[in-house]
Amino acid sequence: MTSAAAALPAVLDRIDADLDKSIARLFDLVRIPSISTDSAYKDHCKSAADFVAKDLASLGFETSVRPTEGHPVVVGKSNGATAPNNGPSVLFYGHYDVQPVDPLNLWDTPPFEPRIDTLPDGRKIIVGRGACDDKGQFMTFVEALRAFKAVTGKLPLDITMMIEGEEECGSKSLFPFVRANAAEFKRDLGLVCDTGMWNPTTPVVTTSLRGLLYEEVKITCADRDLHSGVFGGGAANPIRVLSRIIAALHDDNGRVTVPGFYDGVADLPPDIKAELKSLNMTPDWFLGQVGLKQPAGEKDRMLIEQVSTRPTCDANGIIGGYTGEGAKTVIAAEATAKVSFRLVGKQDPEKIRDSFRAFVRERLPADAKAEFINHACSPALAVAYDNPALAKARAALTAEWGKQAVAVGSGGSIPIVGDFKNVLGMDTLLVGFGLDDDRVHSPNEKYDLTSFHKGTRSWARIIAALAG
Amino acid sequence: MTSAAAALPAVLDRIDADLDKSIARLFDLVRIPSISTDSAYKDHCKSAADFVAKDLASLGFETSVRPTEGHPVVVGKSNGATAPNNGPSVLFYGHYDVQPVDPLNLWDTPPFEPRIDTLPDGRKIIVGRGACDDKGQFMTFVEALRAFKAVTGKLPLDITMMIEGEEECGSKSLFPFVRANAAEFKRDLGLVCDTGMWNPTTPVVTTSLRGLLYEEVKITCADRDLHSGVFGGGAANPIRVLSRIIAALHDDNGRVTVPGFYDGVADLPPDIKAELKSLNMTPDWFLGQVGLKQPAGEKDRMLIEQVSTRPTCDANGIIGGYTGEGAKTVIAAEATAKVSFRLVGKQDPEKIRDSFRAFVRERLPADAKAEFINHACSPALAVAYDNPALAKARAALTAEWGKQAVAVGSGGSIPIVGDFKNVLGMDTLLVGFGLDDDRVHSPNEKYDLTSFHKGTRSWARIIAALAG
Repeated sequence: MTSAAAALPAVLDRIDADLDKSIARLFDLVRIPSISTDSAYKDHCKSAADFVAKDLASLGFETSVRPTEGHPVVVGKSNGATAPNNGPSVLFYGHYDVQPVDPLNLWDTPPFEPRIDTLPDGRKIIVGRGACDDKGQFMTFVEALRAFKAVTGKLPLDITMMIEGEEECGSKSLFPFVRANAAEFKRDLGLVCDTGMWNPTTPVVTTSLRGLLYEEVKITCADRDLHSGVFGGGAANPIRVLSRIIAALHDDNGRVTVPGFYDGVADLPPDIKAELKSLNMTPDWFLGQVGLKQPAGEKDRMLIEQVSTRPTCDANGIIGGYTGEGAKTVIAAEATAKVSFRLVGKQDPEKIRDSFRAFVRERLPADAKAEFINHACSPALAVAYDNPALAKARAALTAEWGKQAVAVGSGGSIPIVGDFKNVLGMDTLLVGFGLDDDRVHSPNEKYDLTSFHKGTRSWARIIAALAG
Repeated sequence: MTSAAAALPAVLDRIDADLDKSIARLFDLVRIPSISTDSAYKDHCKSAADFVAKDLASLGFETSVRPTEGHPVVVGKSNGATAPNNGPSVLFYGHYDVQPVDPLNLWDTPPFEPRIDTLPDGRKIIVGRGACDDKGQFMTFVEALRAFKAVTGKLPLDITMMIEGEEECGSKSLFPFVRANAAEFKRDLGLVCDTGMWNPTTPVVTTSLRGLLYEEVKITCADRDLHSGVFGGGAANPIRVLSRIIAALHDDNGRVTVPGFYDGVADLPPDIKAELKSLNMTPDWFLGQVGLKQPAGEKDRMLIEQVSTRPTCDANGIIGGYTGEGAKTVIAAEATAKVSFRLVGKQDPEKIRDSFRAFVRERLPADAKAEFINHACSPALAVAYDNPALAKARAALTAEWGKQAVAVGSGGSIPIVGDFKNVLGMDTLLVGFGLDDDRVHSPNEKYDLTSFHKGTRSWARIIAALAG
């Protein structure tokens, strides 16, 4: 038995005893408004990076805050601070950046003033932007390491930490950073804590992630805003042009109409489909929690397929013309939409980007022009089922939660994990403790206190299992 | 010869001599940011009303600033201050409110700091929000009165002034105000200065106005914003729902598809159509001035019909989801659009409003709800061709500009003028000096100095002709 495995009972006790302090540390991190997509928050992103680097240094990591074209990447290396073990060397990935907070008026309390609350069903929750995604999540791993350090004086594995600041806006700078430093970051195994549980009592090892293509398109018609009383009826209207394009992106059966979109999308093997069906994701349960009732995706697919194994297209934002109070009889000069695609299987994000842009251009009437900005372009990822780390993690999660851990695909995207496979040549173990009602990306984001506490304990068990 | 006609040469001289002071007075009025549609500017609207009332009082009007549910109406009555004349009693209508100024960054100079500039073709212009619409326009009438007062010591006709503060947001409070005080405001003839010229050298008497139906529609799906990685593919997206509705409002030939929309729209008599055709409104000339080339309306109609005698539909604004910098993978809870209809002939705005709302509701998928706000609902208006004032005004304009004044329909709307006909039972003479390149409702709004100067002289001639 290695020191990590022998120390586990004491480590778990230490996590329990230290919980209040762990929460206080997370609160300090949540208080930093590290919104990466909005350049007004640049300094706050740097503050969050410095905070993380300082915390990792206190655990014995050699840390650095590495500059990029965008927000910096925090790197920590265990080097000599590692206890003897038989485990793989690991690269742990997380992100310190968070989503924007708009609409601010829908938050019950300020998003960067974290607090503990209690839900009507008795669950205690941590409320704040980033409480779950991903500050609360990646801190479960850090807190597990802290307990090992406290009990054994060492870190339990050969660990490289990579905590980035641009996940919420497509990890643009991280891609070249990883490629430029591939030798430095190639380890035996990747670890990520940015995914969810099946429900509040059932842990999950995530076996696939959808890719993400995120485009912004601006339609311009006249060279200025026009008075609809003078030009109405005669002048091209960019809102109408853009609406017709967005309306054309799906057919009446909910299928995406961009040519070639489904190239590389395989049907599920019957046994996997049966397994998904047995999970019985009903609209009442899954959509009911957000006030919806009816699946809105491809009509011939189960809801669980629509949200996890099928590719999708959504307009994430649109703006044009007068949007203030009251009325203005204007014909806008321009209108803009953000359109994203979740990708699966072997869909090629670059081909689909080109096809989408051609799709838009083909629908431009006379006098309308289109400009594009790409915000994300990453393929889907499947995790190898035969990696021994996967079985160890499932066993560790099952031990902690007292319920069989399931292996399912996730509908979400973590852009860089594809490159961990394709550039660094390593599998990644995706374990996280988010819940569907966490309101990540929405007002009143929360993380269950149980997710934070038992998530930390789960990582301690996984680490001990990996250390062998 | 009455005193007004006899005084005309001196009055015109006085207008010429007083021009710089007239401009200075207009500048003072333009400096007040009286944006009616935005409640943040409520106090400024009141300041503009007070400014106008004080100015009218200085001409001998008995003035009052009359409260309404919204912004006040300035009323001035000539009463005993009138010189002997044979003319009709008149109600002059104008508005002191202006359009919003967004996008502010497209203004070359601050919108409420008026200035004189010179265009590349040598035309001198007054630049500022409201320089034309309607502060510059209605002040041409006021300045003409000022010159009569200076020369004769009296006002030239029995005049009631009605300068309102909600024209740019549908004149909501003015409708009940006029109806409640019909006896007080019924005169022989209405006068309005809020329309345009045919081109910089050809004056116009406007013989019809389009009506306006202006609706705001909000589509709501989930009860919160959603993460597209979790719900994407399964959850209804209000931007998609709204885009499909806007896209469906026109068929591929540019016709509006709302059921019953064309009820009450008559085809033009062949002679009127021939006259319109002879005006030769080419796309190059009319659309070219704003960077467009191709008429975007009903394919089987001339451009001049599309923008003046045919009914139209335009989305004036749209917003939903994330519209900030960068990317956010959100599925919005709601999306909102402002949609307006220009109406002609005997189209019934209330019927079309109901039909539009039904059209929207029929297109709501499961889980989508629609809410509506009405911002304007006024029918089209045709001015009686046989009113003798029309011939007098055409002759006066022809004399001032040295070019035959034309009688044409306008594509714009002035909501209250319909009620002058229907409630007060009087015809209205619509004369104005705006130009198509005035950028009303757009950044860098301007009014030609010639429009302001010769517009004032035009009103002096029209008044003298009416006084008989």
